[in-house]
Amino acid sequence: MTTDPLVIFTPSGKRGHFPIGTPILAAARQLGVDLDSVCGGRGICSKCQISPSYGEFSKHGVTVADDALSPWNEVEQRYDDIRGLAKGRRLGCQATVQGDVVVDVPPESQVHKQVVRKRAEAREIVMNPSTRLYYVEVNEPDMHDPSGDLERLIKALRAEWDLPELEADLGVLRSLQPALRKGEWKVTCAIHLGDDTFSPRIMQVWPGYYEGSIYGLAVDLGSTTIAAHLCDLQSGEVVASSGVMNPQIRFGEDLMSRVSYSMMNPSGADEMTRAVREGMNSLFVQIASEAEIDRNLIVDAVFVCNPVMHHLFLGIDPFELGQAPFALATSEALALRAIELDLNLHPAARVYILPCIAGHVGADAAAVALSEAPNKSEDLVLIVDVGTNAEIILGNKDKVLACSSPTGPAFEGAQISSGQRAAPGAIERVEIDPVSKLPRFKVIGCDLWSDDPDFETQTAQTGITGICGSGIIEMVAEMRMTGIVDAPGLIGSPEQTGSPNCFQDGRTYSFLVHDGTETGGPKITVTNRDIREIQMAKAALYSGARLLMDKFGVDKVDRIVLAGAFGAHISSKHAMVLGMIPDAPLNKVSSAGNAAGTGARIALLNRDARKEIEDTVHEIHKIETAIEPRFQEHFVNASAIPNAVEPFPILRSIVSLPDVNHNSGSGDPASGGRRRRRRA
Amino acid sequence: MTTDPLVIFTPSGKRGHFPIGTPILAAARQLGVDLDSVCGGRGICSKCQISPSYGEFSKHGVTVADDALSPWNEVEQRYDDIRGLAKGRRLGCQATVQGDVVVDVPPESQVHKQVVRKRAEAREIVMNPSTRLYYVEVNEPDMHDPSGDLERLIKALRAEWDLPELEADLGVLRSLQPALRKGEWKVTCAIHLGDDTFSPRIMQVWPGYYEGSIYGLAVDLGSTTIAAHLCDLQSGEVVASSGVMNPQIRFGEDLMSRVSYSMMNPSGADEMTRAVREGMNSLFVQIASEAEIDRNLIVDAVFVCNPVMHHLFLGIDPFELGQAPFALATSEALALRAIELDLNLHPAARVYILPCIAGHVGADAAAVALSEAPNKSEDLVLIVDVGTNAEIILGNKDKVLACSSPTGPAFEGAQISSGQRAAPGAIERVEIDPVSKLPRFKVIGCDLWSDDPDFETQTAQTGITGICGSGIIEMVAEMRMTGIVDAPGLIGSPEQTGSPNCFQDGRTYSFLVHDGTETGGPKITVTNRDIREIQMAKAALYSGARLLMDKFGVDKVDRIVLAGAFGAHISSKHAMVLGMIPDAPLNKVSSAGNAAGTGARIALLNRDARKEIEDTVHEIHKIETAIEPRFQEHFVNASAIPNAVEPFPILRSIVSLPDVNHNSGSGDPASGGRRRRRRA
Repeated sequence: MTTDPLVIFTPSGKRGHFPIGTPILAAARQLGVDLDSVCGGRGICSKCQISPSYGEFSKHGVTVADDALSPWNEVEQRYDDIRGLAKGRRLGCQATVQGDVVVDVPPESQVHKQVVRKRAEAREIVMNPSTRLYYVEVNEPDMHDPSGDLERLIKALRAEWDLPELEADLGVLRSLQPALRKGEWKVTCAIHLGDDTFSPRIMQVWPGYYEGSIYGLAVDLGSTTIAAHLCDLQSGEVVASSGVMNPQIRFGEDLMSRVSYSMMNPSGADEMTRAVREGMNSLFVQIASEAEIDRNLIVDAVFVCNPVMHHLFLGIDPFELGQAPFALATSEALALRAIELDLNLHPAARVYILPCIAGHVGADAAAVALSEAPNKSEDLVLIVDVGTNAEIILGNKDKVLACSSPTGPAFEGAQISSGQRAAPGAIERVEIDPVSKLPRFKVIGCDLWSDDPDFETQTAQTGITGICGSGIIEMVAEMRMTGIVDAPGLIGSPEQTGSPNCFQDGRTYSFLVHDGTETGGPKITVTNRDIREIQMAKAALYSGARLLMDKFGVDKVDRIVLAGAFGAHISSKHAMVLGMIPDAPLNKVSSAGNAAGTGARIALLNRDARKEIEDTVHEIHKIETAIEPRFQEHFVNASAIPNAVEPFPILRSIVSLPDVNHNSGSGDPASGGRRRRRRA
Repeated sequence: MTTDPLVIFTPSGKRGHFPIGTPILAAARQLGVDLDSVCGGRGICSKCQISPSYGEFSKHGVTVADDALSPWNEVEQRYDDIRGLAKGRRLGCQATVQGDVVVDVPPESQVHKQVVRKRAEAREIVMNPSTRLYYVEVNEPDMHDPSGDLERLIKALRAEWDLPELEADLGVLRSLQPALRKGEWKVTCAIHLGDDTFSPRIMQVWPGYYEGSIYGLAVDLGSTTIAAHLCDLQSGEVVASSGVMNPQIRFGEDLMSRVSYSMMNPSGADEMTRAVREGMNSLFVQIASEAEIDRNLIVDAVFVCNPVMHHLFLGIDPFELGQAPFALATSEALALRAIELDLNLHPAARVYILPCIAGHVGADAAAVALSEAPNKSEDLVLIVDVGTNAEIILGNKDKVLACSSPTGPAFEGAQISSGQRAAPGAIERVEIDPVSKLPRFKVIGCDLWSDDPDFETQTAQTGITGICGSGIIEMVAEMRMTGIVDAPGLIGSPEQTGSPNCFQDGRTYSFLVHDGTETGGPKITVTNRDIREIQMAKAALYSGARLLMDKFGVDKVDRIVLAGAFGAHISSKHAMVLGMIPDAPLNKVSSAGNAAGTGARIALLNRDARKEIEDTVHEIHKIETAIEPRFQEHFVNASAIPNAVEPFPILRSIVSLPDVNHNSGSGDPASGGRRRRRRA
């Protein structure tokens, strides 16, 4: 009695004995090794590439002889001639077992491969898309046993691929008979594997083996911009990324002005729905052309957005979101057909919209939760998605809380006298010299500081046009660190501050950042009113976070994640000096970039993640800041820089915050809300 | 210890003890008694009407006192004032148990009530529609526990009505928030209960209690006409019936000419698809206006049709159905949204298309099988749906076989020299006097025989225009019974037949039925070519039936059901003389009327029937006549009238068929295929 050869797969470590002549693909399937194949082992698709290893493997206790696999055959030779097979690679469906062997499955041959993410702390994205390709050979019709072509196709698919009961879209029914005959009873099918809403369905049939791929979109529908990643649903790769302005902007810059527009105009909501869907379609045209693919190959799309965008995109009047109790029409995730939303993708394309967490905490926040997975975190993480409305999530594997806080647009440079959007020419970094009390800065589009001799030449093109969101944060924080602004938020006089750049500006003082008037540019200053705007915004953000900490019963968090495009550009130190975020070690503050977009991408590439976030959202405790009495108290305290009551010990161990007070006692009415109130 | 009062429900016989004060509706629900309610016992809908009985019931062993139920209350009084409550009726949700009581649930208060069918032998239709109405009261939104309005609606529906997990159509999401607020958090929902394709969904929401009903369509899509019944989905009543010509007729009279049209014209199939869908929509407009309802209240539609109509309706090119092996694109039942077929009904209306049995045996045959239920028959039943293509089903509860046979349009009066469609003026009944060998007849639109003195006056308006299908059958049968035609199908000379109406007509003889030329009408004759056409058609029909009998292993059937509009007008005796159908006692031959339409209505009103026919169709053995060698042999034998080899003993016991032979031996080339073949 001889033993069959031993086949060991890496990296899974799965192993088993197989008779001589067993194809590696067959062995992998039997052991449940994750080895891809679209053609079902017919040597067509080459998805089952493997790398055999030879020699002695003491770790595995085997020695692999040079002839452990069958020799390179003509199918492999043909494939190599036409497409090229990397050195050392074999086709798993062609190479058969001849002796003990160690076989490595490279990442690109795994169905459930991981998609690489840049950030080490972020969750892995494992490929498990809703729609996949399957090649199959179908029996010809038989008059003795009549059955529809579709039924024979389904029978073949199920027998070969272990698929659930399938149906077909009407479009498939229309193209099926010619496709089967043109492909000589061999076809490739795109199959949507089903979800709670849709039963598993064949979405498209190609004659023979289809060489191309199918695609999906991860769309972040923001109030200002619509951004999308186009992903290959086989490899997981992002093949194009693109964005357009949200055309709804013409109805109102911010969310509430759009809600108002719909209240004031009978067909206002419909107009905005049409506008955003048109914008979406133009984005799809753009991104498909960028990737040089047919838009009809986009079979899936995942959307994340805030609740107002969510309702307007679906064609629901956002009226109720504009007033307490902020009732959503629906909060659960939605699975729809793209055609129901007038989206021009594959005619049977599916759409998935992440669930909303609450009336003010939308599918975008859910996407952040999916990307950052606070519910899986061992340590207590505070996630802040900074925008016009800040979504704040606090939690760990035991419990997750969420709220939103109306920060307003100051962090985006709006309502700031010299504020502007982040664009070339905008000041984005600031330092104020502690001795001279003079500022230097960097602008977007130039790597030099403003005190560099070449700075003027290099910025001649863009000019110095204003201060963007991250710039204003650094500016105010630097002003506080150098005593130009005091804790209550008052800019001092040149005498009080020792800075020649402070100047009387009406009844208060302002601070000159840059005077470009001589070269025809603007005079860029920070007024006391600007400081006030930033105080309001950061107080809203902080008090939301603090409220969640109260509810959680903690006074500090283990780490802080700043999400959103803005979060990516913010200096943690300066944010903490401002008191935007709670006191924490600086190396525990990280940026997650566009976490909402990443969450959309995860939901696109992994259908189990959809179920997961739906469950997670149910478990998130929603806190409505508007009805929490302590929110107001936190807000008042957080108006001070960094805070009237919180000590910020970690921050104070790395920066010194001068204990100045610029209030001259003259009863200046602009000297801060708290003060004013005390006097009243 | 006292015992709670006993409540006995009739007709179910269900009984149980309930505490004093229990509403009858609550008692019924606990016992699983089929007592309807849309409003959930709030005294609004009046669907739960019951009839209490008083006095002694020895059968049940109880005596019901006059005060066995609580007194008539103000809710009942108000309902009676406004709408009127029949004498002796109470509202089951208002009347409470006070003592032992016997309560009858009248048919109209049962959810699963039976819909009355005229024919005693037909199966019952039990109400169990896919879409039902539910009234519900919803919790208001709560900022402390935010959830979407939809989620609170679904929670309320599920709690009150024991419904499965629900979703909502996009249209519902758009109208939900205003409806809930207008109805003060009370709404009525139309809910599609789901099937293999669609998950259970809310289709429509009305503010408050919705007084109206919802409707469904049962559509029989024929090659010539499209006929529909509009049914109330609550009562099961047919509220309107209507029909239009199938506009595809302009592309070809019969199926094969339409298949040819699609083969010859690149966009031919699309044109025909558009045409039939437009015809369908105009029919829907017509039927809704007839019933005086809004077309948007039609939430469900069931379609039956032959395979070519099926494919063209779905937008599938019928090319493959025009050639062996007659492969259907799909044979299974289809659940679709009406909008996918461009049908203008409720925006979320569902469509169900019955399964096809084989490439020539369509969803119409499946509907006949559903209506006539051969698979539940104790005795062996032959069901023949006579049309251009005859669908033939033979079976009993052990086994069911089906085939189709290409009878051609002769039975519809086409390809017959004086043939015409059934319309006023068409000869539909015929008798030939056995002695004088002269014919008399009746025409559609007049009850008198043509030898009645008033016949001429009464038919002056319509004239006598031709012979319809049932007329030609009686004509040929009478000619055979009187020896004017012999068994091989040859019309004799006046000398051979003794009929002065026989006359030389080219190389054969014809028979004069009516000469209207003097009054400007046509001369109506039966030519030997007409006889030949009828022979071909009836041979096709018979040999299909005979083939199924072979396969079943029998020589006779217990009963015969003639389905289709044509079957309703046919004389069984004459059909048997012709040898269209097998020999059987005449009282065992019945007409099922439009059984396909009835099948559609059953599938509309009872969702379980859909599952049932899908299963039944899988179990039906399909016989393809084209590849059965014995079919040709049966066909040749069946060309004779009634048959060259079958003895037809039952028929011969009631009619005498003269043993004549009009073949003069002159080698007349029109004297029948068999003869010619023998001579060759």
